[in-house]
Amino acid sequence: MKKVAIVGAGHTPFTFATEKTSVELFSEAAMDAINEANIKAKDIQALNLGNCLGDFSEGQAMLQSYVANDIGAFNVPATRFEGACASGSLAVRDAFIWIASGFYDLVLVGGVERAASIGTSLATRTFAMFTDSHYEYPAGMTFPAMFGMLTHLYSKHYNVPLEKLKEQMANISVQSHAYGIHNPNAQFKKEITVENVLKGFMVCSPLQLLDCCPFTDGAAVIVLASEEKAKELTDKPVYITGVGQSSSGRLSSQKDHLPRIKSREVSIKQAYDMAGITPNDVDVCELHDCFSIASIIAAESLGFFEFGTAGDAWAKGEAKIGGKIPINVSGGLKSKGHPIGATGPSQVAEIYHQLRGECGVRQVEGAKIGITDTLGGDGVICNLIMEKGW
Amino acid sequence: MKKVAIVGAGHTPFTFATEKTSVELFSEAAMDAINEANIKAKDIQALNLGNCLGDFSEGQAMLQSYVANDIGAFNVPATRFEGACASGSLAVRDAFIWIASGFYDLVLVGGVERAASIGTSLATRTFAMFTDSHYEYPAGMTFPAMFGMLTHLYSKHYNVPLEKLKEQMANISVQSHAYGIHNPNAQFKKEITVENVLKGFMVCSPLQLLDCCPFTDGAAVIVLASEEKAKELTDKPVYITGVGQSSSGRLSSQKDHLPRIKSREVSIKQAYDMAGITPNDVDVCELHDCFSIASIIAAESLGFFEFGTAGDAWAKGEAKIGGKIPINVSGGLKSKGHPIGATGPSQVAEIYHQLRGECGVRQVEGAKIGITDTLGGDGVICNLIMEKGW
Repeated sequence: MKKVAIVGAGHTPFTFATEKTSVELFSEAAMDAINEANIKAKDIQALNLGNCLGDFSEGQAMLQSYVANDIGAFNVPATRFEGACASGSLAVRDAFIWIASGFYDLVLVGGVERAASIGTSLATRTFAMFTDSHYEYPAGMTFPAMFGMLTHLYSKHYNVPLEKLKEQMANISVQSHAYGIHNPNAQFKKEITVENVLKGFMVCSPLQLLDCCPFTDGAAVIVLASEEKAKELTDKPVYITGVGQSSSGRLSSQKDHLPRIKSREVSIKQAYDMAGITPNDVDVCELHDCFSIASIIAAESLGFFEFGTAGDAWAKGEAKIGGKIPINVSGGLKSKGHPIGATGPSQVAEIYHQLRGECGVRQVEGAKIGITDTLGGDGVICNLIMEKGW
Repeated sequence: MKKVAIVGAGHTPFTFATEKTSVELFSEAAMDAINEANIKAKDIQALNLGNCLGDFSEGQAMLQSYVANDIGAFNVPATRFEGACASGSLAVRDAFIWIASGFYDLVLVGGVERAASIGTSLATRTFAMFTDSHYEYPAGMTFPAMFGMLTHLYSKHYNVPLEKLKEQMANISVQSHAYGIHNPNAQFKKEITVENVLKGFMVCSPLQLLDCCPFTDGAAVIVLASEEKAKELTDKPVYITGVGQSSSGRLSSQKDHLPRIKSREVSIKQAYDMAGITPNDVDVCELHDCFSIASIIAAESLGFFEFGTAGDAWAKGEAKIGGKIPINVSGGLKSKGHPIGATGPSQVAEIYHQLRGECGVRQVEGAKIGITDTLGGDGVICNLIMEKGW
């Protein structure tokens, strides 16, 4: 298996509804990534793209072939991946395999979404297609409902009183916004307080408005290269050293394991084993905080905190820069925004810049190993581990 | 690179609108493939699924994780691929890479669609999302329009009078229906005549109703295995020895090359080179006859006939069993049906059964090498070459 490096990243601003098309957004991020990688578009051998809602947001599917042509990567294999919010991460993992196996030396991979353009009410209905649409969605199981239910379950299962848990969750949103201010690509650049969260509009009990991430328009793209190629292009390659992917079935099939998501535990074990590391080796993490409770659930399954204690750990500053494991210092989905298919590649781009020491005031000093965690729908998980390569 | 074998195939009937869900259809074909491969669902290490319209046909995206869970392939990486009509073939090519690279030994891959369930008028509108939706679809560029235009262009470019070309095209539909009668999974089991075609309803000049394939509900699934694993499972493995994939941009960007599709020529060269064969070595072919003119355009770019002569070759019986290169003896998209995401895996299943000598009255005797050709939208091409392995 060949070593696979990230050699460039591009990122549009994450925003409310834009007038740009998905093809334009992706192309913009792609050209930035190509320039940073110091390559030409014609050097690209394959293109992978994560996108969920293209059909619904603008009546355009099969974006990938138009993007490839528009940026000048003519006639390459161009493939679209869909795994709900994890779409972009699946595309990255696949590109990793394509290079690790020796099929290609240079693959452009990213994601794009115009999730804000759909409008919030339609987005929630549209996005419910990524739960079980025959049995669970008709019973009201939208994503706010699912994570509201998981909050109650977590409270009961780990004996954390709901009021205390809500304060812990509020604190997580506050931390994300505090970091998002320093991310030029973040959708929200605004401090919030625990009081703001707890006085917010009730979305789905007990989740209030500021427990929930936004829908977002945007794109993020990275360039992957074989080790050999990477050494020609940069003195500061970041290697992908572990990948994991796993799926669970519909939520009702997971009932014996909830609030933990079994596929996350399967996926992260694959990634840690491949990289030969343990959670203690990780210096920086971007995880899937679609709702504040999701951060708690994820951080525990990733092995950073004991089950039932992550909310407390956040409150003690253990997830801050300087703490045990800095989490979502990009602002996370909550503050940076959540353009569905672009979310995974955006997480990867953040870790890439962190390991290269390019994150300014939100830099985790000396970070050598970083990890991403992306959750799609009610049980698609993809994890990627990256290591500083110089 | 490891050798990759097909060790089982499953196929639902291809039908008009069904009441089964996409998850149910795929699971049905998957269980048949699993049984034929003589494995258990829990042996499967990854699942790839091609699907285009799940969101529109029944409000269900992310089918792959529900399928994996329902058939008992718990917590495997499950990934959905979208490349318009080529979605399922992209999924197969990717599964090939996953095994060839040594990441997995046993991958289930297939496609499913409920394209008939959408209804013909809505399907045409929905499917127009797989052309350029910002510039070309608003100008009327649906798929019947695109292939109607290509028919005129072909006639002019190769100096084949339109009336003659229309008769040649009608003859292709007649041949497909004559073979489809013998395929128990075909949507249409009905002989037609050249007169039927030429007196048919005009869809988009010069294409008449029987020049066009139908929309179809159905699923097709295959099981791929590493050589080592394949030898444990069967005495009659079929190896995938060449793969190709390429994309062109929107139709207007292809104008210097049309009526030929440049991505097909790029893709098939990759596949032939990898397999180390030439068109003359191919014994049986399943190609993407979404419209009768599409058969002519494809067969020429695949290298079976000189440019401008394929219609004549069909008329002379060169594409029949016993002719130079038997094409679409399954009935093709025209008679067997076209459940978008399932079409590629269905083509692969047909070649697999042909090389194993299991096709009854439509068997191509002694076939050792077969090829599939799948076209997605206006320029995604995937080609797969298979060889008898015993």
